[in-house]
Amino acid sequence: MSLAESRPQQDCPARGRPRSEAVERAILEGVMKLLEDGVPLADLSIERIARTAGVGKATIYRRWSDKEDLFVDVLRAAEPEDPELPGTSVRDDFVMLLESQRRRGLATRSSAILHNVYAQMKSSPKIWAAYHATVVAPRRRIGREVLRRGLENGELRRDVDIDLLHDMLVGPMLVRSLLRPDAPLEEGLAEQIVDTVLEGLRPVSSPGA
Amino acid sequence: MSLAESRPQQDCPARGRPRSEAVERAILEGVMKLLEDGVPLADLSIERIARTAGVGKATIYRRWSDKEDLFVDVLRAAEPEDPELPGTSVRDDFVMLLESQRRRGLATRSSAILHNVYAQMKSSPKIWAAYHATVVAPRRRIGREVLRRGLENGELRRDVDIDLLHDMLVGPMLVRSLLRPDAPLEEGLAEQIVDTVLEGLRPVSSPGA
Repeated sequence: MSLAESRPQQDCPARGRPRSEAVERAILEGVMKLLEDGVPLADLSIERIARTAGVGKATIYRRWSDKEDLFVDVLRAAEPEDPELPGTSVRDDFVMLLESQRRRGLATRSSAILHNVYAQMKSSPKIWAAYHATVVAPRRRIGREVLRRGLENGELRRDVDIDLLHDMLVGPMLVRSLLRPDAPLEEGLAEQIVDTVLEGLRPVSSPGA
Repeated sequence: MSLAESRPQQDCPARGRPRSEAVERAILEGVMKLLEDGVPLADLSIERIARTAGVGKATIYRRWSDKEDLFVDVLRAAEPEDPELPGTSVRDDFVMLLESQRRRGLATRSSAILHNVYAQMKSSPKIWAAYHATVVAPRRRIGREVLRRGLENGELRRDVDIDLLHDMLVGPMLVRSLLRPDAPLEEGLAEQIVDTVLEGLRPVSSPGA
């Protein structure tokens, strides 16, 4: 970053040379603005983004190696932040992880941009792969770490593969938030899913019939 | 169907007036051929499909009300058929339902067309809605029917909403087949998921530490 880039960010489009963080924000907001205007991801060139954000193409390439990289950061900026886990039990940690997933689901439903970008991302293997590698995979690693602890301290049955345990805990919320846009994402859902998956779907007291 | 449409189907493209079923097949295969050639769904006009299948546009419109309707049938033709359920228990029926989901997942991975069409479908709200209404929703109704029986005869706990019970059973396999293209879809997975979700993730015998 050159010291010359120290002018405060203008409203829009940014002129001159605003500071580093402000430049970044202007670029991310430029992409969001284009998406809000209905420009498809595939048509978003670095040139067009640069023009909208009022920066040079080189300024963008100094921060992101390519378009896919940039889009992943746009998504990150639009998504709610990932939570700190309490670290007390598989139950408590996964309630937190699923609650965060639920909030992302709600954010996607209420934000036309997020909704639009997710939908388009799925049809772009390159962006999907970038999002997966930098956002989804790290989240999954955190969940696996929680499960590994739970296997060690006896909270979880040991006859099921850790990867499958993970899919069983996150699957129901993922189905609701990603595949069933009309399904309820009500408060308390994270607790209910985690507790029920841990205890099982069989009747709790005495089995009938 | 006029009686004049009785000439057997030619190899391709079909000329003259082949029989009804053969016409249908020629049209579905025409769409698949175009998709195989890499034509994006959005660029597939009824006119182009008619030309490829060697039929008139009216012949297509006699069978499908619009492009979306036709695409859903292309998908249906490419997907493995839905199974007959044994009807003996929630466990057995859901093993069958999840096994069918697993096979669809495998088919999607091995078929470039299916893979491509699913991916594009997700970015086309109209096709997605049509596929959902005519393929996914009926499957879900069948699953709910199985669960309703299981709630009545005491196989399932009654303190969880039927819709959520459904998501808990199908979620893990859906995650694997739709959201995690690299995850294993090994034989026996359906049984393992259903049994584990029914019994819960807690240790089976005595809980440790």
